[in-house]
Amino acid sequence: MSKPKGFEKPAGVRDYLPHVVTKLRHIERNVLDCMSEWGYRQIITPTMEYYDTVGVASSTSDRKLYKMLNNRGTTMVLRSDMTTPIARVMGSVLKEESLPVRLSYHANVFRSIEEKAGRETEFFQTGAELVGNDSAEGDAEVIALAIASLQAAGVETFKISLGHVGFLTGLLEEVLPDQTIEQEALKETLLNRDFVGFREQLAHFQLSSEQRQELEGLLRLRGAQDICRQATALSSNPRAIASIQHLCKVWEVLEAYGVSEHVMIDLTMIGDFSYYTGMVFEGYAAELGFPVCSGGRYDNLLTQFGRPVAATGFALKTNRILDGVNLLLPQEEAPVLIAYDVNSRREAFAHATELRRQGKIVITEHIEATHRLEPSADTHPLTVKYSQTIRFTDGQIISI
Amino acid sequence: MSKPKGFEKPAGVRDYLPHVVTKLRHIERNVLDCMSEWGYRQIITPTMEYYDTVGVASSTSDRKLYKMLNNRGTTMVLRSDMTTPIARVMGSVLKEESLPVRLSYHANVFRSIEEKAGRETEFFQTGAELVGNDSAEGDAEVIALAIASLQAAGVETFKISLGHVGFLTGLLEEVLPDQTIEQEALKETLLNRDFVGFREQLAHFQLSSEQRQELEGLLRLRGAQDICRQATALSSNPRAIASIQHLCKVWEVLEAYGVSEHVMIDLTMIGDFSYYTGMVFEGYAAELGFPVCSGGRYDNLLTQFGRPVAATGFALKTNRILDGVNLLLPQEEAPVLIAYDVNSRREAFAHATELRRQGKIVITEHIEATHRLEPSADTHPLTVKYSQTIRFTDGQIISI
Repeated sequence: MSKPKGFEKPAGVRDYLPHVVTKLRHIERNVLDCMSEWGYRQIITPTMEYYDTVGVASSTSDRKLYKMLNNRGTTMVLRSDMTTPIARVMGSVLKEESLPVRLSYHANVFRSIEEKAGRETEFFQTGAELVGNDSAEGDAEVIALAIASLQAAGVETFKISLGHVGFLTGLLEEVLPDQTIEQEALKETLLNRDFVGFREQLAHFQLSSEQRQELEGLLRLRGAQDICRQATALSSNPRAIASIQHLCKVWEVLEAYGVSEHVMIDLTMIGDFSYYTGMVFEGYAAELGFPVCSGGRYDNLLTQFGRPVAATGFALKTNRILDGVNLLLPQEEAPVLIAYDVNSRREAFAHATELRRQGKIVITEHIEATHRLEPSADTHPLTVKYSQTIRFTDGQIISI
Repeated sequence: MSKPKGFEKPAGVRDYLPHVVTKLRHIERNVLDCMSEWGYRQIITPTMEYYDTVGVASSTSDRKLYKMLNNRGTTMVLRSDMTTPIARVMGSVLKEESLPVRLSYHANVFRSIEEKAGRETEFFQTGAELVGNDSAEGDAEVIALAIASLQAAGVETFKISLGHVGFLTGLLEEVLPDQTIEQEALKETLLNRDFVGFREQLAHFQLSSEQRQELEGLLRLRGAQDICRQATALSSNPRAIASIQHLCKVWEVLEAYGVSEHVMIDLTMIGDFSYYTGMVFEGYAAELGFPVCSGGRYDNLLTQFGRPVAATGFALKTNRILDGVNLLLPQEEAPVLIAYDVNSRREAFAHATELRRQGKIVITEHIEATHRLEPSADTHPLTVKYSQTIRFTDGQIISI
């Protein structure tokens, strides 16, 4: 094992240079402001949590958790999501708090992954949780807020795919009763959005043509509100029926929000966290093949933290939006350079203060320091053109 | 070793509830905005770095570094400061960048400590680095920016103590030549601001009365500009003299900034990082016994990352300001509650959108959910009074 070189940073993590930070901060601020307008208030939790509590409850697979030992030999993890730490907070410092509680966050989370090109082990999520509301109104509020948040982030064209864990589970239990292995294999293909794989799996199983039809029918259950009716006809399993009825109600509330045009019901949706118990959704931006947000209902997670209440929420995949989406950003302001000699410090600094008061960015430089070549922007990512250069000599402005 | 309970978080880390986050975000935003006005642009670096590079260079003692192994068995650390990662960035992605470079950050850093009451292992720093400027002008700019940053954070009354590593080192080398152990022992007491301990150490050493006088004289070298003259008289060591001459120049520039009233020269100052090579300073708020900011010149650190250039910078101790200083904060806005029945969703949501557009915070609740008791704020830290409740029934506003 060779020692890393001085200039190396670990694989899968990133240095965000100023022009990227500007974009990231723009997303962060606009989305958090949007959530704040909806009554969601920001929370910050620690980077490290106990493995035995938040780590285990997080639904991140064990090999993807970053683990470490603390002074006392207790296993710690770097948080892999924010939903689980917030569940812990709801069961501790906020355990007396009356419900519903609305919380938001912008945080870095960690997943240990094979070092592949382009995969990140540390990345940002910007999200919201509605705790203590078990209704279709609550689910719809969270979806409507996800839509408003994507818009606030600057994502112009996107579609929300909406499904329900209970419908899929009910349907599979009906068609493949007690065949847990087969059920899990099919869920795995759906989780990966691998519909070819799903059909191949079906071909392998011993199924009547009726069973196969019923399961293949699932793949066609993608569209607007009429999917609700079709789905009701597909299954007679009570859990599947209750789930689809709930989804119909959510749709109705989304129509009242005036956002159903952004939503597509997709009953192959299963959600990427094992703690989801009800509706699940993902948001896809027009230009990208992977989701830019995901969310769902998790009515059992808080029970693990001693507070058995329903909850629903979502997170934007902030890094994917940062990298993949063309956002309309305000032009960065170019700074003013004030160059001064030793006899003009007072005047130069006073002028700088005055310009800063007017909201300008001002760099002051002792005059010898300013005789440098203008480098090209290619090899010099920080290079900015000055909007103006003001020179002070012997206490006087000599050129503007 | 007992398993942690579900509600427990690790010792030394913190959950920041919304009213605290508001205060923290206020400091963060105002300070970063101030730094931006001075031409300092934000950078974000990874939470994890290689132990062998950033970990070793960080000057955080080994036992205070949080270490962990990655997939490949390489030792990683959670960053213990931001100056060292920025030095790495200057030696890699920014190695072609023309100088000077001005960077700012707001970041959480980690120090593994004995679990004592009130000591934090994860906390925020908000800071700035000026890379590629080796002059007194550069040092003064950083001190003046630290002063502007404290003011932007809302710290009203504070004092900056300014010293120089070279003066102290030169003086000790002059009086106690080659007595490294004694030199280090004296430096340790000064680092801890333990002047009684300093005198006790002196009493233990075999010193002439002249030597003792010279070293005790150090403790009196605290005050305004006239300290420069007194200090020059105290030592004939070339390094000590060059250092004090540099400090006199810094003072002169600070006077031009109009901020010298906030500064006190204190030649017992040594700086809390071993990578400091020149001037060092700490800021003390009126109400607090510990520093709220610290900084200094570190001309050798970047050499370890392949870019031998001078640099100077500082960081606010953001958590101490958050907890210890009474800041003047804008009053948090109380939300409007819109309660609606199933026949009024459209009207209620449209009204909410309109109020949010006007900048109001609006919470919508299905009407059955709003018949809850108003809890007391003591046990319910999130409790907010609504500024207004608007009820919609059958599509009409029935009460405001």
